[in-house]
Amino acid sequence: MYRSHTCGELRIENVQESVILAGWVQTIRKFGSITFIDLRDRYGVTQLLFGEELNKQLDENSLGREYVLQIKGIVTERSNKNKNIATGDIEITVNEFTILNKSAIPPFTISDETDGGDDVRMKYRYLDLRRNAVKKNLELRYAVSRSTRNYLHENNFMDIETPFLIKSTPEGARDFVVPSRMNPGQFYALPQSPQTFKQLLMVSGYDRYYQIVKCFRDEDLRADRQPEFTQIDCEMSFVEQEDILNMFEGLVKRIFKDVKNIDYTDTVERMTWEDAMWNFGNDKPDIRFGMQLLNIKKPSSVYITKNDQPELVSGADFKVFDEAETIIGIAVPGCCEYSRKQTDEITEWVKRPQIGMKGLVFIKCNLDGTFKSSVDKFYSEEKLKAIATAANAKAGDLILILAGAEERTRKASSELRLEMGKRLGYRKEDEFKLLWVMDFPLFEYAEEENRWVARHHPFTSPKPSDIDTMINNSPVITDASKYLEHPYANIKANAYDMVLNGNEIGGGSIRIFQRPLQEKMFEALGMDEAEQQHKFGFLLGAFEYGAPPHGGLAFGFDRLCAIIGGSESIRDFIAFPKNNSGRDVMLDAPSTIDAKQFDELQIKLDLK
Amino acid sequence: MYRSHTCGELRIENVQESVILAGWVQTIRKFGSITFIDLRDRYGVTQLLFGEELNKQLDENSLGREYVLQIKGIVTERSNKNKNIATGDIEITVNEFTILNKSAIPPFTISDETDGGDDVRMKYRYLDLRRNAVKKNLELRYAVSRSTRNYLHENNFMDIETPFLIKSTPEGARDFVVPSRMNPGQFYALPQSPQTFKQLLMVSGYDRYYQIVKCFRDEDLRADRQPEFTQIDCEMSFVEQEDILNMFEGLVKRIFKDVKNIDYTDTVERMTWEDAMWNFGNDKPDIRFGMQLLNIKKPSSVYITKNDQPELVSGADFKVFDEAETIIGIAVPGCCEYSRKQTDEITEWVKRPQIGMKGLVFIKCNLDGTFKSSVDKFYSEEKLKAIATAANAKAGDLILILAGAEERTRKASSELRLEMGKRLGYRKEDEFKLLWVMDFPLFEYAEEENRWVARHHPFTSPKPSDIDTMINNSPVITDASKYLEHPYANIKANAYDMVLNGNEIGGGSIRIFQRPLQEKMFEALGMDEAEQQHKFGFLLGAFEYGAPPHGGLAFGFDRLCAIIGGSESIRDFIAFPKNNSGRDVMLDAPSTIDAKQFDELQIKLDLK
Repeated sequence: MYRSHTCGELRIENVQESVILAGWVQTIRKFGSITFIDLRDRYGVTQLLFGEELNKQLDENSLGREYVLQIKGIVTERSNKNKNIATGDIEITVNEFTILNKSAIPPFTISDETDGGDDVRMKYRYLDLRRNAVKKNLELRYAVSRSTRNYLHENNFMDIETPFLIKSTPEGARDFVVPSRMNPGQFYALPQSPQTFKQLLMVSGYDRYYQIVKCFRDEDLRADRQPEFTQIDCEMSFVEQEDILNMFEGLVKRIFKDVKNIDYTDTVERMTWEDAMWNFGNDKPDIRFGMQLLNIKKPSSVYITKNDQPELVSGADFKVFDEAETIIGIAVPGCCEYSRKQTDEITEWVKRPQIGMKGLVFIKCNLDGTFKSSVDKFYSEEKLKAIATAANAKAGDLILILAGAEERTRKASSELRLEMGKRLGYRKEDEFKLLWVMDFPLFEYAEEENRWVARHHPFTSPKPSDIDTMINNSPVITDASKYLEHPYANIKANAYDMVLNGNEIGGGSIRIFQRPLQEKMFEALGMDEAEQQHKFGFLLGAFEYGAPPHGGLAFGFDRLCAIIGGSESIRDFIAFPKNNSGRDVMLDAPSTIDAKQFDELQIKLDLK
Repeated sequence: MYRSHTCGELRIENVQESVILAGWVQTIRKFGSITFIDLRDRYGVTQLLFGEELNKQLDENSLGREYVLQIKGIVTERSNKNKNIATGDIEITVNEFTILNKSAIPPFTISDETDGGDDVRMKYRYLDLRRNAVKKNLELRYAVSRSTRNYLHENNFMDIETPFLIKSTPEGARDFVVPSRMNPGQFYALPQSPQTFKQLLMVSGYDRYYQIVKCFRDEDLRADRQPEFTQIDCEMSFVEQEDILNMFEGLVKRIFKDVKNIDYTDTVERMTWEDAMWNFGNDKPDIRFGMQLLNIKKPSSVYITKNDQPELVSGADFKVFDEAETIIGIAVPGCCEYSRKQTDEITEWVKRPQIGMKGLVFIKCNLDGTFKSSVDKFYSEEKLKAIATAANAKAGDLILILAGAEERTRKASSELRLEMGKRLGYRKEDEFKLLWVMDFPLFEYAEEENRWVARHHPFTSPKPSDIDTMINNSPVITDASKYLEHPYANIKANAYDMVLNGNEIGGGSIRIFQRPLQEKMFEALGMDEAEQQHKFGFLLGAFEYGAPPHGGLAFGFDRLCAIIGGSESIRDFIAFPKNNSGRDVMLDAPSTIDAKQFDELQIKLDLK
């Protein structure tokens, strides 16, 4: 062993001990004939004191930052204590040192506030990983995985590994494929998730399965997506939705406790998908703050159980509102005194292409009880007051109103709510609010193909009360313009998402476990019998031999860690992430392969 | 929840309780108007009693084996207790039952002794996994992984995930490659191990890393190899070989304790590679038993520090021995009374193509002190006695002698030793003997290319005393016939294998951590500077910035589990294994992919 102690371990109690330390040179400070060096390792930093004699040797060796140093010395009490670090009471009076390895000058400073841009830090990821900020993230990631494993173990879950070289069954996302040399012309696929395997394990009787496992999706990478990512993947048998919700809010609460020492004692709220969309414009609402949407107007074909209030704005000859499909308002607390410049800026914000609205109407609810609006000439004080009342606005609030096509307006309202929440400091990194969103639609309509696609995946069960609707109706959509009237449009899924601070951190469902219903589902998605058999014959087969009722969920492990770590970037929580083009710039991968490899795999390029 | 208790949980204390159970119908036994059903789940089996009334309902439902059943009933004391199962004191008097799912008749019997052949059980793996024998294996696997994680956590190791989509750098085994759609013409490779990543993590300062991780090798599958397999992968910084050996024998001892409740208190033996080859003919000797080899004769170019004893057989005009490069004997205890038939059978055994010897000489050491041999006419009683003495044979033993070319004869001696050990019952499933084999040669000679290849991998450090030899000599072999005289032939590696009961369960080394030595190593393996830079530029780069001394090892997790589980087949310990052609016969993978996938990936087939 090159050391007797780590650089984070020595305390005042160790004074007078002979020790050996090894680590990296963090800083060198010369004061005349003596030198102080901060020596760093994974566990901390310890100050080294080189006296007059060793100082000369130091000079001869031209020691620099990031050199790897081994020293022998005596633990000494510091005269000038540093309360900011755990070893700050002591220093080591060095007797002897060995340079274990040299270091070139790093391309960026290895400290919390680094001068290195993203690109250079990705290329030299092994140096970026030395920074305390990054190390803390990986430590948090390990703590989350450790906590997860302990909780699931105590609850009788078994970690069972599922294969990585499987069969390509593209449905939704694209598969990464792997040519098979031993079976020329054939390909494996890398799993998008272990979904079908965990269901097979339920058929096999392993009633509580989990895995922390890599998954792969060959999608065009939006910001903060990675082609390979990690899931906490779980499945249970003989359970109903309620059992799963309880088990996995327990898991997240345990993680909060183990990793952040937070006692999350609140009941985890539950919300239907419809309520989430209606009140927040979003299926993963951030409920750390209110500012719920006022649905003034909506098309009759959507949210049919909900009541809008078009009378609030009708009959005033304001064309923008009269012609709009959807009108949504938000009362922003305490902002009635925004200047013209400020309201203009928000208006520009909603007009950005990412949001895509044509404009913004505002109503200031003045503290004296009067109202001032950008549409004063259309709406009387009384009308404005009625809107304010409906929006639950108080004196002092600013009501922002968006109008336009349903989907875009609802999305924009959600974005605007989040933006204003952020500006007002309502979205605190260290406040955590969990939420279950439930009762999603089972199907989505795919316009180009005029057919249904699974919103979650093809193994999700409909709500028990909707099973008959599904079985007794044909999935065929005869009139595309009226797809919303098709009975399938209103079938709800036995599915649930876990939302943390406005991010979907996990999702799952009760699964179909009977072959006829699974076949009906495949049929609904446009798969004929031959295709069903080719792609999922093994699963349909398994359902013949006593499949138990089962369900589960998967957490996005990278994202869960990022959010618990107070970041929105998953990349900061992955040791060796890829960039937005799916490249590892450190390795320079992907790259070309040898002619011999093409030859053995019996494939060739077909570049366009 | 579909149940109040599992099928393994109820005891005599629960009598009178109302319970709900769910599980699979294991057996149905009708006795007139009542029926007994054994209900099975992951946790055990519970006997159900259906009285007269329910019996009728049962008949109407034509219940069968493997049906999924939910029952409500009362726990009752059995009159006829079954001491073989944990729930054997009770049964459930059923009040109500629901068939949760039906089952077709399984293609084989789901019981410990199954009637299903390998092929049908692989195709219906989800049914095979229901068998207790297979379940026990997966439970053992989970217990080993749990024990490993706990031990490594307590020793400050951090689980850090490394990427799966990396760069192809074929060196030794073939890579599986993955075409990149976003980077047409380029490919990722799946990792053969996280070797370079764990070394980068050491450079980054994460001084104790581990991962239980899938690895991939596209090799022609010998029996009991899988294209994807799992490693326990570990690395440490600031350590010497001794530290690593101690840490990881500690791990295996902990696994023995946690999983098998075995206190492995023996010191773990250590043996040099040369001693292993000399005394056992094998670099992974099974030391549960003795029967060490008697090296009568060897070529002068190998094992140069060892002394053979050719005088034992020389000067007798026995051509087979006189012309043989190598002669090796084994004293087999207590077999002097083998019949002619028995010695003939052993002779046939060594003549099989897998062993490849031309014949076998035997000497019977009779209990009365006389000797009888198949080569009596060449060797006097005195000569035979000298051989017996040299072989440590006792009266009653049978000495078997093989002669031929060095490599083949040594290997055959090892096989013969293992075979005789097995026949004599010396290789007990439930006895565990660990061994470190150390000081391997750093290089092997590749005849076809007349160059050196790395015996372990290119990152293994030579022994400190051999570093100068490596740096100061050219790797070029000028005279192929004398490669054994090249200074590189005798360089020893700072490497070690862990051997359990004659199986290599893990291996590792102290790594090279200085750029010049790493470059010399790449050069020795025939890589020019451009190739070094293309394949391993990131690692050479990392070594510029203060790489610490480090080393590690990896365990073959599948094999470790198999051996601890008393089996030689890793496939039995993998939930969804592939067959010898690398196929998953359950999924029918690999398989063809769609034209659209080829199109997007910009590749096409080039079948020969």
